[in-house]
Amino acid sequence: MYQINENYLKLPGSYLFSTIAKKVNEFQEKNQDKSIIRLGIGDVTQPLAPTIVKALHKAVDEMACEKTFHGYAPDLGYEFLRSAMAKNDYEKRGAKISADEIFISDGAKSDSANIQEIFGKDNKIAVCDPVYPVYVDSNVMAGRTGTYDRITEIWSDVIYMPCVEENNFIPELPKKTPDLIYLCYPNNPTGTTITKEQLQVWVDYANQVGAIIIYDSAYEAYITEEDVPHTIYECDGARTCAIELRSFSKNAGFTGVRLGATVIPKDIVCNGVTLHSLWARRHGTKYNGAPYIVQRAGEAVYSEEGQRELKQQIAYYMKNAHTIKTGLMEAGYRVVGGVNAPYIWLKTPNNMTSWEFFDYLLEKANVVGTPGSGFGPSGEGYFRLTAFGSYENTVSAIERIKGL
Amino acid sequence: MYQINENYLKLPGSYLFSTIAKKVNEFQEKNQDKSIIRLGIGDVTQPLAPTIVKALHKAVDEMACEKTFHGYAPDLGYEFLRSAMAKNDYEKRGAKISADEIFISDGAKSDSANIQEIFGKDNKIAVCDPVYPVYVDSNVMAGRTGTYDRITEIWSDVIYMPCVEENNFIPELPKKTPDLIYLCYPNNPTGTTITKEQLQVWVDYANQVGAIIIYDSAYEAYITEEDVPHTIYECDGARTCAIELRSFSKNAGFTGVRLGATVIPKDIVCNGVTLHSLWARRHGTKYNGAPYIVQRAGEAVYSEEGQRELKQQIAYYMKNAHTIKTGLMEAGYRVVGGVNAPYIWLKTPNNMTSWEFFDYLLEKANVVGTPGSGFGPSGEGYFRLTAFGSYENTVSAIERIKGL
Repeated sequence: MYQINENYLKLPGSYLFSTIAKKVNEFQEKNQDKSIIRLGIGDVTQPLAPTIVKALHKAVDEMACEKTFHGYAPDLGYEFLRSAMAKNDYEKRGAKISADEIFISDGAKSDSANIQEIFGKDNKIAVCDPVYPVYVDSNVMAGRTGTYDRITEIWSDVIYMPCVEENNFIPELPKKTPDLIYLCYPNNPTGTTITKEQLQVWVDYANQVGAIIIYDSAYEAYITEEDVPHTIYECDGARTCAIELRSFSKNAGFTGVRLGATVIPKDIVCNGVTLHSLWARRHGTKYNGAPYIVQRAGEAVYSEEGQRELKQQIAYYMKNAHTIKTGLMEAGYRVVGGVNAPYIWLKTPNNMTSWEFFDYLLEKANVVGTPGSGFGPSGEGYFRLTAFGSYENTVSAIERIKGL
Repeated sequence: MYQINENYLKLPGSYLFSTIAKKVNEFQEKNQDKSIIRLGIGDVTQPLAPTIVKALHKAVDEMACEKTFHGYAPDLGYEFLRSAMAKNDYEKRGAKISADEIFISDGAKSDSANIQEIFGKDNKIAVCDPVYPVYVDSNVMAGRTGTYDRITEIWSDVIYMPCVEENNFIPELPKKTPDLIYLCYPNNPTGTTITKEQLQVWVDYANQVGAIIIYDSAYEAYITEEDVPHTIYECDGARTCAIELRSFSKNAGFTGVRLGATVIPKDIVCNGVTLHSLWARRHGTKYNGAPYIVQRAGEAVYSEEGQRELKQQIAYYMKNAHTIKTGLMEAGYRVVGGVNAPYIWLKTPNNMTSWEFFDYLLEKANVVGTPGSGFGPSGEGYFRLTAFGSYENTVSAIERIKGL
């Protein structure tokens, strides 16, 4: 008789955003007259930029003609896209990453969930707390996290690095030595970030203790301040200890287009085996490439026109971020984020729990946000709003919150 | 110090098709004047059908407009596509599968590699031999296959079900009881198939011993004979023991578009837990949906015009299959497949090994095929050719082989 993967049963409840979607749908069904504004999930709302649309149409036309039709993509992704990334995301920032160290994928969510597969089952992971749930849940499924305490909401074998008001949301080096360290800057969910100097400390630490940093840079396009690194490879020594996850979801509005990449420098070697070769093997065996038309759309992101259009799109969202942040501060909330990231992280008022505030906001203001506790125990008492709504909705939402 | 997943190191060499691509590239570089015909990898060559192209353009235009823009897709995939599949692939064939038992994905390769994750590590897998390498390799990576004998090319913990001339390429029920049984019909690589009656035996067996059948129906659109099942759910009892993998790669030319689906009936229950809920959790946590535009393209596959165009496309490839099969038989080869599948499986002449015949064909005829031994030990001495080339190339390839 077959058996299931028992690790799945350890997972508490469903995936955070599925739970939110269910709650919101139930509320909407019971209150069909209410107009709900969603500033919860980090989903973009602006249409694709004209240059990207043009590239998609062109690629579709190529697929319609035998001579220009494209079947299976190369294992690592098309060279035109990998080269554009190597040049624009790395070379221009003085970071040494070659095109063949970049693996194109269907998005950073898949990659951030799958990357743990190439590591041993006994590796200890360290995560910021709060954290993007996928990092932890994918390790739970792999049996790497020990047992779950439903009261404290803590996994026995996960090293938590609290990011709270008291430490300005910057994690301290963990007391217990981790094997895999997940970092995401600019941060989801707190919207805070890290300076190059602060990140260098982590790179040095990882090299010293023999840990791998899995660095999620999904939000780097939102950086406005000078000393914030756009890639971990701006730090010395990152080529021997850091894997970087890149997304097109937030810099180019690709949440429904699906494109991402994982960078693994060939200098990361464990007992003579490169992590690059392991990920290449996984990519070749368990994945079949991002669609040709989507990879062409990704290439267009790096064109001059594409870059100009996307800067406007990001400015649009960051105007929302500013509106949310200043509005909430005027209403007396304690708030961080929103300067180098499209996320605003607020302390719930009156000692409400995160979910209490979620229900309160949904019922009283018909605004959907994300409960901080959904991102980890130290997220309790916090709440995330995102800048990805339309400007009009964002203004309305803040007016409603101010009016509570 | 972190550790890698040691199971990866057990894998012999690289993924089969990566190895072939390398060999062919090397040959081409040394022989730049030679025109190579590729009948190796199962990649389509005909352009997308007009109705699909139209649907793609329309969906791209929707993504260009704020009101019709689509961000993250629903976890299971868009309802319009799942409903079209439930109706056309199942209801029309008298099989009971509801839309919410269908999970849309980026392709059957990913799904066939990932599906093992929801099962326990100690489950024993049974595979046909020869077999699509992904089924085995994904289980190797998960540590489920024991040790590899490089001489016999056999994994100690895998149950092999030889499919050879002697048993007409139909596997016998295994002597050792498996937990997970991988079946693919019409078969890759042999191009042979199974009758509904024969498949019913497997369904009954799985229900009796408490095994799960993972049924890959990627090639069902190529079925021309009456008594061959298009889905395993045509068999009684399949709803309690069978998972079906569906692909758009071969029926609609989507190898570079990327779309597939996994069907898990809610009736499969293990100790009170449905496999459906486990896969839903995996989908929600580790995947973020197929692109909206691609799901719309998938919907167009089921339109009346789409179906008409695709029948022509399949007829085109099956004409190639006929050309290859009859040509090889005229040249004295022993051949199966090519009637209900786009694959032709031949016995190598003069007791050549599969790789010897690969090199011979590449060097003497400049034709690329796939060595049977790459699909498993019982594939040794066989060779696969595919019908996915252009008609002109297929005719030329067969002329060249006849002229050897």
